Order: sequence, then C-alpha cells, then structure tokens
Amino acid sequence: MTPTITAFESSPDRGRGLARDLRVRWALEEVGLAYQVRLISFSAMKEPAHRAQHPFGQIPTYEEGGLVLFESGAIVLHIAEHHAGLLPDEPLARARAITWMFAALNTVEPPLVERGMAMLLERDQPWYAQRQPLLDERAHKMLGQLSTRLGTAEWLDGQFSAGDLMMIGVLFRSKPSGILDEYPNLAAYVARGEARPAFKRAFDAQLAVFTGSGANAW
Amino acid sequence: MTPTITAFESSPDRGRGLARDLRVRWALEEVGLAYQVRLISFSAMKEPAHRAQHPFGQIPTYEEGGLVLFESGAIVLHIAEHHAGLLPDEPLARARAITWMFAALNTVEPPLVERGMAMLLERDQPWYAQRQPLLDERAHKMLGQLSTRLGTAEWLDGQFSAGDLMMIGVLFRSKPSGILDEYPNLAAYVARGEARPAFKRAFDAQLAVFTGSGANAW
Repeated sequence: MTPTITAFESSPDRGRGLARDLRVRWALEEVGLAYQVRLISFSAMKEPAHRAQHPFGQIPTYEEGGLVLFESGAIVLHIAEHHAGLLPDEPLARARAITWMFAALNTVEPPLVERGMAMLLERDQPWYAQRQPLLDERAHKMLGQLSTRLGTAEWLDGQFSAGDLMMIGVLFRSKPSGILDEYPNLAAYVARGEARPAFKRAFDAQLAVFTGSGANAW
Repeated sequence: MTPTITAFESSPDRGRGLARDLRVRWALEEVGLAYQVRLISFSAMKEPAHRAQHPFGQIPTYEEGGLVLFESGAIVLHIAEHHAGLLPDEPLARARAITWMFAALNTVEPPLVERGMAMLLERDQPWYAQRQPLLDERAHKMLGQLSTRLGTAEWLDGQFSAGDLMMIGVLFRSKPSGILDEYPNLAAYVARGEARPAFKRAFDAQLAVFTGSGANAW
C-alpha cells in the first residue's frame, strides 16, 4: 500500500524546505518507501474534509490504507517503526533515538519557532527591539546545550537515526536566520544531514512542486 | 528492575502538578509499575553528572538498568510500549494514540507555554498589555480546534491512552490560568483525567515531596 502525504499547494517558502512535509518525505526516502503527494490549498486545509484528517488544519498528514496520521513526529516514528533504517534494533539504543525525536520537537523546536515567528510577525511592533534579545537568549541557551552534547560526534547517538532526522529537520528551519553559524558543530551536523542522498531527494521533490518540474506534484 | 525518575527537590509550584515528572509518575501508576524518585536541586540539575543524563539540564529523567532517557514524551512512550494499559493492541489505534502524544507536545503545548511564560516573566514589561492578546489568540485558536475534535467524546480516540495522558498533562498545566474554563468539554476532559486513581496517586506522590508526608521522597 503506497502511502499518501499532504503538502502545501502554495508554500510560503516556495519549497525551500521549511514546510514540515520535508521531514516526512526524508523519512520515506531513507527507508526507500514510494509515496504519493496530495497538494492542498490554504483554504482547503481549513475545510471539514481536511480537518477530519488533521484536527489543527495543517500539513502533513499520512494516509495508508485505513490509517490516517498527522504530526510529523508521529508520522516519522510510524515509518521508522515499520521499515528498517531509522531506528536501531538494540532496544536501549532504539529508546534513546526516540528520545531525541521528542527532544527535537518539544525542547529544541519551540524556542526556535518562537524566535522565528517573532522575527516574521512582530518585526514592526514597538516592542520588537527590546524583546528579541530574550528570545535570542532562550534559543542560544538551548543550542549551546545541544552543541555541547553533540561535541565532535557525527550523529547524536551512534548511527544516524530518526532522532537525527527530526533534530536536523528542526535545526534546518533556523538555518536562514544565521543562528546555526554560531555553533560550527551544529552547522556541520545539519550539513551532514543535507548531504544524505535521501534528504536531497526529499528536498528536490518538495521544491519540484513549485518549480514545475513535476516530480511528485499533481 | 525498578526504574528511578528524577524530580525537583524544590519545585516552583510546591508540588501542584506543574512539573513534568507528573506525567511520568501518572504513566507509571497507570501501568502499575513501582518506581523510585531521586530529587534534584536546581544547582545539581546544571552539573555535568545530571547533564550526562539530561543534556538540557531539566527533569524528569528515567533510569532503568542501563537505560537512561529524558523528555517526558519519550519516557511515557517507553513505559507505554513495555507495559499494558496505555496503548491499544490494534496497530492503527496504537499509531493514532501515539499521534496524540506528539500533538499534545508539539502542537498544543507550545502556544500554552508561550502564553504562560509571558504571563509569568513579561508581566512588568511595557509591551505586555499590547502583546498578550496575540498569545491569547494563538492559544484560543488551538484550544478551539482541540475542543471541536474532542466534541462529546470521553477520550480523544476510543479508550483512554497515552495520548490522553499526555494531552491532559499538557492542558492541566494551563488550568490555573482559567483558559480551560472557556472550553467546557476540555475542562471536563481534564477533570476525567484527574479523577483517575492513577492520576491521583501520581499527584499525591508529587505533592508529598513538599508537604513532607514522605511518600516516594528521600
């Protein structure tokens, strides 16, 4: 059964990898699972038909037979559980890889998204200049801790796993802001992720929706 | 092997359920697994010994034999995977329950924490009165969508699961702000969670750390 994911028909970033379907595409490419993409407009995302699949009216969703999932973390974990390549077989290493997935989404992503959203949506507000240092400080504190933990390792815990995929997927979205450049080992870690053939295929497929080369877009 | 979790030696809320070890205690109580608690001070949380267990210097952690986990979501999932009672056996229902865990932590918690943190830390700032409506709007939008999805159901998807545990654990932390009262079905949902004997035991054990009744505290 070929799964179908949803992605933006018209993405604010024109396919430069900021939309969260990238993580799901990447996971599917890592395990070698073919997939279909259903593009969805911003207005259709708010309609009951889509909300039945995604209660918060977002992308991505994941359909496979009778199964419908939302949340990129849950989808990537589902893929990783059912196909070899993204989770270690050894039980303790497997649990630690899943821990990094949750850390990426619940500890690392929130301060980065909060900072990024403020830069995007509050830049013209009178409080922006005063407040942004608070957000920078929170983001730096967390990135500094992550940088310390990663150290000189290639990946977060042994072999590349779904934990790295999710962490790099999260960090990648902050790359345009320049903040990663302050942590050379994190920048190199993200670059290692981007260099993976599966990431490249995923990125190119997302971009192709907007450049009209047609791969995965219909 | 009895697991050991870490919790605040001195909690800002004096054990009223806001610290994230509550979710882990609740999961352990739901599956009937005895556990030990190692209390940790704020200064010790920042020391290398604790950071080796938790790279971000927080609680809770979970130790079980050679396994060390952090992130309440990962810990609850680990418990749910290895003990009956928190995940359905049926594969599609199991995947959906895990989806709600991620939704709780990555979609529902961030706007609630952002709003709560601003109320706590930015109340004296000149921008507070102007900015808080933005945060209220984000929180309301998300809670409204969750309320619509829950409707008149008892739990999010069939039987009580780790997805409900995590969602109620997240919503519970916003209860003191009064925002849940605007969504009677969500308030009732949280109350159903609080009424579970396992929740009560977890809450009482966390509170006992501070009232000195001694259960689980040494």
